[in-house]
Amino acid sequence: MTQGLVLYGYWRSSAAYRVRIALNLKGLPYESRAVHLLRDGGEQHAAAYRALNPQELVPCLLDGGRAFTQSMAIIEYLDEAYPDGPRLLPAAARDRARVRALAQAVACDVHPLGNLRVLQALETRFGAGEAQRGEWMRHWIGAGFAALEAMLAGSPATGRHCHGDTPGLADACLVPQVYNALRWKLDLAPYPTVARIHAACNELEAFRAAAPEAQPDAPGSGK
Amino acid sequence: MTQGLVLYGYWRSSAAYRVRIALNLKGLPYESRAVHLLRDGGEQHAAAYRALNPQELVPCLLDGGRAFTQSMAIIEYLDEAYPDGPRLLPAAARDRARVRALAQAVACDVHPLGNLRVLQALETRFGAGEAQRGEWMRHWIGAGFAALEAMLAGSPATGRHCHGDTPGLADACLVPQVYNALRWKLDLAPYPTVARIHAACNELEAFRAAAPEAQPDAPGSGK
Repeated sequence: MTQGLVLYGYWRSSAAYRVRIALNLKGLPYESRAVHLLRDGGEQHAAAYRALNPQELVPCLLDGGRAFTQSMAIIEYLDEAYPDGPRLLPAAARDRARVRALAQAVACDVHPLGNLRVLQALETRFGAGEAQRGEWMRHWIGAGFAALEAMLAGSPATGRHCHGDTPGLADACLVPQVYNALRWKLDLAPYPTVARIHAACNELEAFRAAAPEAQPDAPGSGK
Repeated sequence: MTQGLVLYGYWRSSAAYRVRIALNLKGLPYESRAVHLLRDGGEQHAAAYRALNPQELVPCLLDGGRAFTQSMAIIEYLDEAYPDGPRLLPAAARDRARVRALAQAVACDVHPLGNLRVLQALETRFGAGEAQRGEWMRHWIGAGFAALEAMLAGSPATGRHCHGDTPGLADACLVPQVYNALRWKLDLAPYPTVARIHAACNELEAFRAAAPEAQPDAPGSGK
């Protein structure tokens, strides 16, 4: 049995990025193992990885040898199994529901539409070129951010972070999606609260250390 | 303030269907309000509904006048705010993580790719006809079910239902996705565990009463 926490991820995967943020916020040390999504037809499809995660997606977290999948489920697991660190979800049911809804507004309604495999399918099935794929990305991220902005700006529960003044599950989902949006050159001006929270998060070392470019498998990281 | 539970949904929405199952499993009575997704350009886009859910998606649950969105977040809220009924998530952190991962494998990685707005975008952006949209649906549901089948069939924690012998969050996500798969004429033979759990769930009145055709807004329901 592998002891301790091991994270299988990929530097630029939004979902892996979320879990890195959560591990850092909780102050939990972990071993990072890269799964290169583009090399050799995708290392996530190899039999050894598929045995850990039949979905053939990153991330996958090992805790004492047991495999956990799905980034939001992993983050809630970390919060429940390691309650001593800062809490990533608030205590009251209605507040927990709000944080989960914000996280899912990103993880269910924005991110899946821009996943690598979906962009590949748009190209092979419909001949979508780079310009069309860019429009597709900006359309869905823009629609998602417009809703997220309304959810955040319209609630007194929003603080320096998505829920109050401490970062948690929703921030761990928001920041990687903004990173992705910037990569696709989406103008963030219509989403000032989203942009403000993104900036506040990136002042924290837990978020900076989780950034794609800070990972050992990032091109040119020199690690 | 509206008292009690009010569910804004649409008979054929997978996400609303999930919440109906959860409400029934918990034995919680609720008032159902239909939001017709296709009438008048989509009633979910009307200002009155947008004030409840800025995402302009169903479902939305009112509890004592407070609005809750995102189906999985709503289901966990019901389980936490109404702990007296049957529990929809198990007690141990690792088991909760498994149930959430199964639910999210459907709700994050299958369902979003076949949402109404995505099919509409494939048609308007890429000219995808009915046959191509059908292939798109079967491709993603098939990929998702292959993974789900491996996750379920490969674990001793799977019982009559997704986790043990009582239905919960994962079953509430699985059943509407199978309903959707059958509508798109996906052959379920490669996914025997998924099909078996779907059948077991539909023997229960909580699932039967939540079915799309049993809703007052279903065409020809006569209610």
